[in-house]
Amino acid sequence: MSPQIAALSQVDRERLIKASFEAKAMAYCRYSNFRVGAALLTSKGEIIKGANIENASYGGTICAERTALVKAVSEGMRDFVALAVVTDVKSTISPCGMCRQVIREFCAMDMPILLVPADYYERKEVSATEAAESVKDWTIAQLLPDSFGPEQLDLPRS
Amino acid sequence: MSPQIAALSQVDRERLIKASFEAKAMAYCRYSNFRVGAALLTSKGEIIKGANIENASYGGTICAERTALVKAVSEGMRDFVALAVVTDVKSTISPCGMCRQVIREFCAMDMPILLVPADYYERKEVSATEAAESVKDWTIAQLLPDSFGPEQLDLPRS
Amino acid sequence: MSPQIAALSQVDRERLIKASFEAKAMAYCRYSNFRVGAALLTSKGEIIKGANIENASYGGTICAERTALVKAVSEGMRDFVALAVVTDVKSTISPCGMCRQVIREFCAMDMPILLVPADYYERKEVSATEAAESVKDWTIAQLLPDSFGPEQLDLPRS
Amino acid sequence: MSPQIAALSQVDRERLIKASFEAKAMAYCRYSNFRVGAALLTSKGEIIKGANIENASYGGTICAERTALVKAVSEGMRDFVALAVVTDVKSTISPCGMCRQVIREFCAMDMPILLVPADYYERKEVSATEAAESVKDWTIAQLLPDSFGPEQLDLPRS
Repeated sequence: MSPQIAALSQVDRERLIKASFEAKAMAYCRYSNFRVGAALLTSKGEIIKGANIENASYGGTICAERTALVKAVSEGMRDFVALAVVTDVKSTISPCGMCRQVIREFCAMDMPILLVPADYYERKEVSATEAAESVKDWTIAQLLPDSFGPEQLDLPRS
Repeated sequence: MSPQIAALSQVDRERLIKASFEAKAMAYCRYSNFRVGAALLTSKGEIIKGANIENASYGGTICAERTALVKAVSEGMRDFVALAVVTDVKSTISPCGMCRQVIREFCAMDMPILLVPADYYERKEVSATEAAESVKDWTIAQLLPDSFGPEQLDLPRS
Repeated sequence: MSPQIAALSQVDRERLIKASFEAKAMAYCRYSNFRVGAALLTSKGEIIKGANIENASYGGTICAERTALVKAVSEGMRDFVALAVVTDVKSTISPCGMCRQVIREFCAMDMPILLVPADYYERKEVSATEAAESVKDWTIAQLLPDSFGPEQLDLPRS
Repeated sequence: MSPQIAALSQVDRERLIKASFEAKAMAYCRYSNFRVGAALLTSKGEIIKGANIENASYGGTICAERTALVKAVSEGMRDFVALAVVTDVKSTISPCGMCRQVIREFCAMDMPILLVPADYYERKEVSATEAAESVKDWTIAQLLPDSFGPEQLDLPRS
């Protein structure tokens, strides 16, 4: 377990998971019917919720993770400590590449990204340990290896 | 003057313009250095602020108008009465096509869209009338004529 | 009829419409099942075809019009004289806002944009005049009024 | 070395790298001044070139890798065997998350993705071995671990 993941307290972890479920309820997904909720924890303990907001053009769709991030950044927040994502699927679902790229812009490479299965609370009723283990812990360093970011744009060009 | 524009009170109009300037201060625009602020007024009188949030990939950039809209929609708001947009340019700057498409998804065709010049308050010090006239009033029906939207996706296909 | 539309010969007009139908056959639209074809005519008489290429992330979707444009531009073409768009819907369907924005970047404000109904050739069998009239002629000046473009980014900022 | 990378012949590898440099010359990057070229090899030996095509809206920008892919797919090609990417930077630059997501939609998880340094040919003049080793070989399985794709959208939802 990395230091950052250890640093996320059990209480914050549960708060963040709960917020991701609440966020999912706000999804506007009339085209995919695939609801996604995301919750972002700031260093001050604030939680910012995001949901997927689809568009008839498809290309104009913005995912839950990016919604949470642009909400937070547009409120002046820049210091994030964890992100949780949940869908209606009983296995964990990982962020799309666009969201990984936007996470890359604003979050530490080792910030915990928790992927939560849709039946997390049903699992928890049976076994808290099993529920905890059903959550996948990632970092953006892992999800977007050899990433392109602001530093690459600043490299000298021939 | 359309009935909707008439319906936007002078007080709300000024609140919305002020909020768009506040929103602009939060822009994350390290690539373009082009700050944009947007403010969205709901039917309940709430104001949601958005700023442009850029990305090293450029394509991952989300404009101020869309930031405001996804913030609002992800909080369950669906009933919007006006939008204001301001940049650092002394002439009014209009939303990009992507933002027009996302506005189209959620806003009434005749909802007022106020484009505000960067020197609105300087103008106002000289003349309130001149400042008021410096704001361009549009609707999405005007900015995105013959638009593509949810209804088009539902049309029968051969 | 504007000078540019007049300048598009009847032969080129028919070639372009035919190419848009051919382009549509290549659509990758497993999420929307909404096929779109686009065809772009260059000043040298070349025709570049595009189709919508969707993506599981929805936001990664690229429409037919943009596909045609990036194909052409990435081959060094910069001088376009007309664009045709067709879907499977019997009424004409207009480009989304994102496509209008990309058209805005590369095409003349008065370049003809032909929106073709899916039953164009059935109509033509009955009446060539009726078929011709079933095509909607637009320009990007009309489809994206008061547009944002490269010139706006260059304006002085306070 | 994976079986697929072994399967890419030295000749095809050099053809693909050369094509990525040619593609780069077509970049339309007036906002970033960051040229990118991509070349995609099909199972029939065809090479499709892409360059980054930027947009004043920033969000409307399409990268080189996606340009190559939508070009190929819109021509009916679906079977790809390798992709090469080059920029003007002397270290290798990796695809953004959006491009990884579009690669994920169309390419095999173990398809070779060659990241080529801008000074590849200068290096080659000195030492063919050193030049060959300066190219980074990746796969989309490596660049987008635990990826979201079409299969995830089809999973049962609670």
